[in-house]
Amino acid sequence: MTGPRHGADARLRGLALNTATLGHNLEGRGAGWPVERVIDACAARGLGGIVFWRREIGARAAEIGERVRGAGMEVTGLCRAPYLAGPLALPSRDAIMDDFRAAIDMAAALGTKVLTIVTGGVEPGTRGIAPTLELIADRVAEAAPLAAACGVSLALEPLHPVYAGDRAALVTMRDAVDLCDRIGAPNVGVACDVYHVWWDRTLPAELARAGCARILGFHLCDWLADTRDVLLDRGMMGDGVADLAAIGRAVRAAGFAGCAEVEVFSARNWWLRPPDEVLDVMVERFLALG
Amino acid sequence: MTGPRHGADARLRGLALNTATLGHNLEGRGAGWPVERVIDACAARGLGGIVFWRREIGARAAEIGERVRGAGMEVTGLCRAPYLAGPLALPSRDAIMDDFRAAIDMAAALGTKVLTIVTGGVEPGTRGIAPTLELIADRVAEAAPLAAACGVSLALEPLHPVYAGDRAALVTMRDAVDLCDRIGAPNVGVACDVYHVWWDRTLPAELARAGCARILGFHLCDWLADTRDVLLDRGMMGDGVADLAAIGRAVRAAGFAGCAEVEVFSARNWWLRPPDEVLDVMVERFLALG
Repeated sequence: MTGPRHGADARLRGLALNTATLGHNLEGRGAGWPVERVIDACAARGLGGIVFWRREIGARAAEIGERVRGAGMEVTGLCRAPYLAGPLALPSRDAIMDDFRAAIDMAAALGTKVLTIVTGGVEPGTRGIAPTLELIADRVAEAAPLAAACGVSLALEPLHPVYAGDRAALVTMRDAVDLCDRIGAPNVGVACDVYHVWWDRTLPAELARAGCARILGFHLCDWLADTRDVLLDRGMMGDGVADLAAIGRAVRAAGFAGCAEVEVFSARNWWLRPPDEVLDVMVERFLALG
Repeated sequence: MTGPRHGADARLRGLALNTATLGHNLEGRGAGWPVERVIDACAARGLGGIVFWRREIGARAAEIGERVRGAGMEVTGLCRAPYLAGPLALPSRDAIMDDFRAAIDMAAALGTKVLTIVTGGVEPGTRGIAPTLELIADRVAEAAPLAAACGVSLALEPLHPVYAGDRAALVTMRDAVDLCDRIGAPNVGVACDVYHVWWDRTLPAELARAGCARILGFHLCDWLADTRDVLLDRGMMGDGVADLAAIGRAVRAAGFAGCAEVEVFSARNWWLRPPDEVLDVMVERFLALG
């Protein structure tokens, strides 16, 4: 196992890799590094944490969590709970809640404090987002005590409104904070991903309303002006038009003190590059944000 | 010229066709009907108005406007002013303002009261939407007196946030009403297109804040849950997940009394069908909204 290189910038302790940035190692996406190599590469650069996806963990959650901590980092989060509603959700409430519990168990075994929730889109048979947000509130409220017993917090992540139909009826920080208020559990908060919310001028006020105890994640990438695909064409910080510095200031002003995680889905660019190059550019761009 | 069919539902006087729904008659989009045939087909169904695009009008604005009124309808609006900023705008401020004035002149010659503005995306060299919204305010404020002298109002249309990078930095009704406040001209208002704002729970409050004098347009279509293309895959009313009835109530509650215009860009469905079928379905779906 490799330790941090001599002289790594101390600010990198505030940076986490979301493994999506390396393409998840899925077929044709990224170089296919084993988890151990990803951990060592992050540790060698002096990063503070890593965010994994469930598909990468399998039955090895405890072992992988230990390895991350052994390398001097934290498991910043786990992606993600299943869709809790909408056309892409599992076919029954029972199946959804079973998988939700399995995700909470995995987070606990990994030793991470944060499980991210992407809510799922408009529930079939309903119109508008309001009825779906009620379903979401109900399901998160049911799972919250189990998560709390495992030391896991649930981060409601508003996605870009382009996904409202299928992937996430929760599309604004305002609605996310309202959901937290409604659920009223101390371990339910929000995640702020710049890709989804950069266009929203009410974001600083809503982050302040959330408050430091409820901001559970801060995700970095950039919005490309010529975005070709809303799912897999994210930019690296600095290549797009989001005001990342201003959003970062708003997140910190609201009291968030955790690692910023870099999550770049990029089928046409970054997933085609060697992981070492992607990590080096990620580090450089993160430090350039100031 | 054909008049309305005997017994056309009187509610159809509140319906306008946006010619985009018939594919603009561009190459491979729609059946290529001449403007006259479109006018006659709308009149025969008892519609109240038509919204044209500049490319369909050419030098025939006065003639076309007369023909619409002669058929017992109004020209509900004209699409649209040029992008006022962003990567797709004309290359200089002078060129942009010249084309803006040409659009105002065409609206006046058509005899329509409303020219729609799609603002253009994030201005190159800036980040976030705030600096671009300042440019937009400046340019609309400059053009507003000329428009007023022509009897034309300028409708700021917030587009879906998916377009913020390139097509429209103005992406919420809240920001649109703020822009109106800032510009402070009596002939500058907003257009509410359900495709762009259906996901926004603050919409009713923002429409109320706009007030009836500043709501200049109400555009109908639907958001398909499985949207494949954010530009050319809109649904007909009833085929998607937007709560059109609720949005319609909010628009009317805010005092809007004009025609609702149906604007369906649909390369994979409606543009492939005969225009008479599209118009008949449009009428049926509009009446079904209640």
